Amino acid sequence: MRIARAKLPDGSITHGCLRDESFFPITGDILRQWKEIGNSFPAAQVKLLAPVEPPNILCIGRNYKAHAEEGGADLPEKPLLFIKATSCLANPEDPVVIPAVAPKRVDYEAELVVVLKKAARHVSETEALQHVLGYTCGHDVSARDCQNGDGQWARGKSFDTFGPIGPWIETDLDPSDIRITGRLNGKVMQQARTSLLIFSVPYLISYLSRSMTLLPGTVLFTGTPAGCGFAQEPPVWLQPGDTYEVEIEGIGTLRNSFVKE
Amino acid sequence: MRIARAKLPDGSITHGCLRDESFFPITGDILRQWKEIGNSFPAAQVKLLAPVEPPNILCIGRNYKAHAEEGGADLPEKPLLFIKATSCLANPEDPVVIPAVAPKRVDYEAELVVVLKKAARHVSETEALQHVLGYTCGHDVSARDCQNGDGQWARGKSFDTFGPIGPWIETDLDPSDIRITGRLNGKVMQQARTSLLIFSVPYLISYLSRSMTLLPGTVLFTGTPAGCGFAQEPPVWLQPGDTYEVEIEGIGTLRNSFVKE
Repeated sequence: MRIARAKLPDGSITHGCLRDESFFPITGDILRQWKEIGNSFPAAQVKLLAPVEPPNILCIGRNYKAHAEEGGADLPEKPLLFIKATSCLANPEDPVVIPAVAPKRVDYEAELVVVLKKAARHVSETEALQHVLGYTCGHDVSARDCQNGDGQWARGKSFDTFGPIGPWIETDLDPSDIRITGRLNGKVMQQARTSLLIFSVPYLISYLSRSMTLLPGTVLFTGTPAGCGFAQEPPVWLQPGDTYEVEIEGIGTLRNSFVKE
Repeated sequence: MRIARAKLPDGSITHGCLRDESFFPITGDILRQWKEIGNSFPAAQVKLLAPVEPPNILCIGRNYKAHAEEGGADLPEKPLLFIKATSCLANPEDPVVIPAVAPKRVDYEAELVVVLKKAARHVSETEALQHVLGYTCGHDVSARDCQNGDGQWARGKSFDTFGPIGPWIETDLDPSDIRITGRLNGKVMQQARTSLLIFSVPYLISYLSRSMTLLPGTVLFTGTPAGCGFAQEPPVWLQPGDTYEVEIEGIGTLRNSFVKE
């Protein structure tokens, strides 16, 4: 099932289900109880939004071996958590703004994103997926100059619009071995299977839940495959007019273009 | 004026004003329009909670010279942002839990905390304080082994209960030169004046707002003075049974005790 959040033709915003090229609005809470209202809209007549408004955007760094290596980092012995501010969320198809204060080294990162349904605290790997609502595509846009210059990654990854997610949440998906692809202006720059994740989705949830409560609606970026712009020869930085697509097998494609602030 | 959030004797939770040792509940939104309802409760009959539920907990590292030096770090040329997960929020007087997975090097950090009222984006230093609702005390509890071992500070600073704030928001305060004190079991461990901040409150708001929207209700930890446990000879780590107080001139005292998970 595909759960989306959308702006309807009358301007109102609601969650709903996407099927048969139609959007079926729901009442209730996608994290708790909900049901379809009955009427529907042609999918082309609604504007899809980031499918959840998370209490936290948790992210894992260096979770594909080839990406850790391209960055010259040792392989992590445990998941490396960082946090993007919730203010950086962006909708599918909306422009990502290359910031005026850091325009030169904006880079792409295609990622599988987990959306938590139930609060997770001290859950085992075997229980972990019971706490998941579903999966979506995410783009962890990163200003490498800030990220590396600050040392802490929070600012370089939290510029407004640097966190597109979508286009919907797929609830029926096994995240253990699906293909993830990142395309810059149609050209494949990143491609891997989630079977190559150093720390799997259940492991990440279990690990993080031993430190903190993963609140309902939490969004977890699971890490990006190799092929980032900084590692190209010469480096490739995102420019106004560029488009980047994150396609994940079994989910769909998240597409955003870049504009100058 | 002191704005607090409290659990009333009937178990309901509401914002209100504290004066004359009474709590006056309000209707409305402390970030927008509100008014007092009329009735009141003796302050001793309500349980004070973290005074705001922020969309993000933004924090600045190494913002007092003597603290940067005690950590062996160079003085920052610009504010160093990191983020605590919102799930780590804790109430005044509530226990802070020393986590089972990282019990050995839990440290204290007394901080002045700014609460944003209006969204701030690209604001100047001179305009910055117009976006502030008020100020409260904050405790940036930190598991040094995780913080330093991970490199990124997010996990070591986001354990559940590692973010106490309170006991209320003081709206009438000039943050430029007030005393901040941290006491462990009654003994002063940290003390400084905010005039010693490397980056002032208006500068921090202006600087961060050039990267991101500071959403209404955002909480900004402004940095901790010298005297942290890691820098004592021998190091002092928080133990079950310890109490730490953050007292800020013109606001009040935030007090939390520590318990074992």
